[in-house]
Amino acid sequence: MEKKVAKLGVIGLGPRGRDLVWTMTSIEEIEITAVSDTNPNTFKEVYKMFDKANLRRPETYTDYNELLSRQDIEGVIIATHWITHIPLAIASMKAGKYAGVEVGGAASIEECWQLVRTYEETGIPCMLLENCCYGKYELMVLNMIKKGLFGEVVHCECGYGHDLREHLAGQYPPNNRLYNNIHRNGDLYPTHGVGPIAKMLNINRGNRFVSLTSMASKAAGLKDWIKKNKEPDYELAKYDFVAGDVVQTLIKCAHGETVLVTHNITLPRPYSRFNVVQGTNAIYMEDKKGIYIDGKSKEEVWEPIDNYYEEYGHPLWKKFEQGGVKGGHGGMDHLLLKAFADSVINKAKTPIDVYDTAAWMAITVLSEQSVNTGSTPVAFPDFTNGKWINRGDKITSSYSLDEVVY
Amino acid sequence: MEKKVAKLGVIGLGPRGRDLVWTMTSIEEIEITAVSDTNPNTFKEVYKMFDKANLRRPETYTDYNELLSRQDIEGVIIATHWITHIPLAIASMKAGKYAGVEVGGAASIEECWQLVRTYEETGIPCMLLENCCYGKYELMVLNMIKKGLFGEVVHCECGYGHDLREHLAGQYPPNNRLYNNIHRNGDLYPTHGVGPIAKMLNINRGNRFVSLTSMASKAAGLKDWIKKNKEPDYELAKYDFVAGDVVQTLIKCAHGETVLVTHNITLPRPYSRFNVVQGTNAIYMEDKKGIYIDGKSKEEVWEPIDNYYEEYGHPLWKKFEQGGVKGGHGGMDHLLLKAFADSVINKAKTPIDVYDTAAWMAITVLSEQSVNTGSTPVAFPDFTNGKWINRGDKITSSYSLDEVVY
Repeated sequence: MEKKVAKLGVIGLGPRGRDLVWTMTSIEEIEITAVSDTNPNTFKEVYKMFDKANLRRPETYTDYNELLSRQDIEGVIIATHWITHIPLAIASMKAGKYAGVEVGGAASIEECWQLVRTYEETGIPCMLLENCCYGKYELMVLNMIKKGLFGEVVHCECGYGHDLREHLAGQYPPNNRLYNNIHRNGDLYPTHGVGPIAKMLNINRGNRFVSLTSMASKAAGLKDWIKKNKEPDYELAKYDFVAGDVVQTLIKCAHGETVLVTHNITLPRPYSRFNVVQGTNAIYMEDKKGIYIDGKSKEEVWEPIDNYYEEYGHPLWKKFEQGGVKGGHGGMDHLLLKAFADSVINKAKTPIDVYDTAAWMAITVLSEQSVNTGSTPVAFPDFTNGKWINRGDKITSSYSLDEVVY
Repeated sequence: MEKKVAKLGVIGLGPRGRDLVWTMTSIEEIEITAVSDTNPNTFKEVYKMFDKANLRRPETYTDYNELLSRQDIEGVIIATHWITHIPLAIASMKAGKYAGVEVGGAASIEECWQLVRTYEETGIPCMLLENCCYGKYELMVLNMIKKGLFGEVVHCECGYGHDLREHLAGQYPPNNRLYNNIHRNGDLYPTHGVGPIAKMLNINRGNRFVSLTSMASKAAGLKDWIKKNKEPDYELAKYDFVAGDVVQTLIKCAHGETVLVTHNITLPRPYSRFNVVQGTNAIYMEDKKGIYIDGKSKEEVWEPIDNYYEEYGHPLWKKFEQGGVKGGHGGMDHLLLKAFADSVINKAKTPIDVYDTAAWMAITVLSEQSVNTGSTPVAFPDFTNGKWINRGDKITSSYSLDEVVY
């Protein structure tokens, strides 16, 4: 029997788009039939990848509408500028193509609602390409929770701690991400951290985010970096950056759980996603690579979480490992794109759906609202319009993040 | 020349009071001439300590007013129930005796103001017996900040993470601390963590806390512990606990710095004070025992902070270590009590003063206000009435926490 393949298009061929294309050339369930970018110079780079992978070169377009009008495309990967992700996802769904949206916060709550409405009208899924849900330890902790090891989960922490000063302030003109730091104050990149935690807390399936409050520190990091590393006449030295170096957001869930989300990218520090998961029976901390289990771990001592990998490693990751971990971000991108392709091939719902996408991307908007009104608490919209209380459509594929499928 | 001695009284001889008495019997600069407790059974325990230390037994009183009326007492250590600390500190100052107040949050903002007014009327100092300011690493990081190693400090984290479930819920009737967990929702114990951070951020001396917002998780930990460890008819099984298991408070400072304070005592976990200090040039994290210094540490790698102890260890701690670290809490109590005694002996201001005491203890009240109004932001009172902007009375003794005295 012929192996089934998802025929995908890619819109946006900047560095992130090209990374994803390169990862996809190694996934045999994916065939990229067309790509699109407003800058045709990017096509050469993409051709090289296809030649190297010994694959047929895709069609190229500078107008994404032409790509969306192709009959042979079933799904679209969107990796353009942050503020165009949602409009393009809507266009994809309207064209009958699964929308795979790269990360980035939303710009308004209204566009999140538009995304949800479009899904409900078209029935075409939309999936945030949230990398970290398929991280090795994120999957493992999800598995441990489902097996009851944590007891009742009470509090979680997550976020994005990555020294991006050189990347952001090191070149002029400003890149897409830096534009956000120049103009917006709030958690500009919550989805990386919040995705896995939302799944652990059953958000939109029996639980939901109900409110948040957010606080931003001063913005000293980029100014300082430019001062230390560039000449005084460097163009960016004249810029102000409104995004605080450290933005922290406290989210309250319907069942009383709390989530601390941190955005921390303009000060020196080693990388972290700040993951902490604490329940009535155990606590996990990414920065310690440690776990403490009540009555099992030695009192007051963190155990290496790897001690439990054999027993609690997630079956999806274990299987993936047997084939050799591939692709960007320690393999997460690879698994994520396979999950998207699997849904496309089976005409099934995506493991991260439009309600997840809207709720996670909305954090940026709500965080800005809170920061800019002195950390007032902000109510979280219920993008499911009440369906979260009793949804019956759990994903049952091996890529499911709602349950662990063996 | 005769060695100078501070003549102190102690009010409150519960477990914490007796701990402090025991520590003080080994400090030759302190002479305890009288102790007081409403329960005279505690006196026997105290006598034993003095006999063991070969010291003259103190006078004992069940009415603290009798202790305060003694002419030979210069300072008083207050270790009673939490809600009596401030009234007793006020009584001590009015009696002309330095007030040394054990930790615990305030119950109202008004009583913090009363404390401040009493100091301003009497001129008698009041010092929070905040243990952790004199911790080895807290002092070391303070020293590193003063030497410029962190650059501009932007964000700090701190708190109290200690599995106290058995201590709290393990015995009936409820102890003093458990009563708070039964009745109050907020950060019940902020001072341990906030003290050192406040000193690092120059709070009340050129900087101040301007606002905070606080969020509490559900309260699941104590119920769960009782269910797992006690019979169903255990008296405390009928109790509700209103204090959330994890309470997090975001504080904004006048100069744009942010502080995250965590209270986390009713779920299983190894001990932590959650210290993080992040500036434009370096970051320290207690849980990693690590530091990362821009351009010095290997990229993306935490270095053991102990690598820098020789160069940056605080002179007070180094001197203390030469004599052999003594006393409770890894030596912090010992140093703290010496600092208090040193001020008494020299009729000098205390390194932690009444404005510090009021600001740190007020966090409990403000946190409760915020939690109980859905995480609304709450303005922080300026207990200095504007003096923080340009105070000129820095402490210059070797116990100073405003500067590092060599």
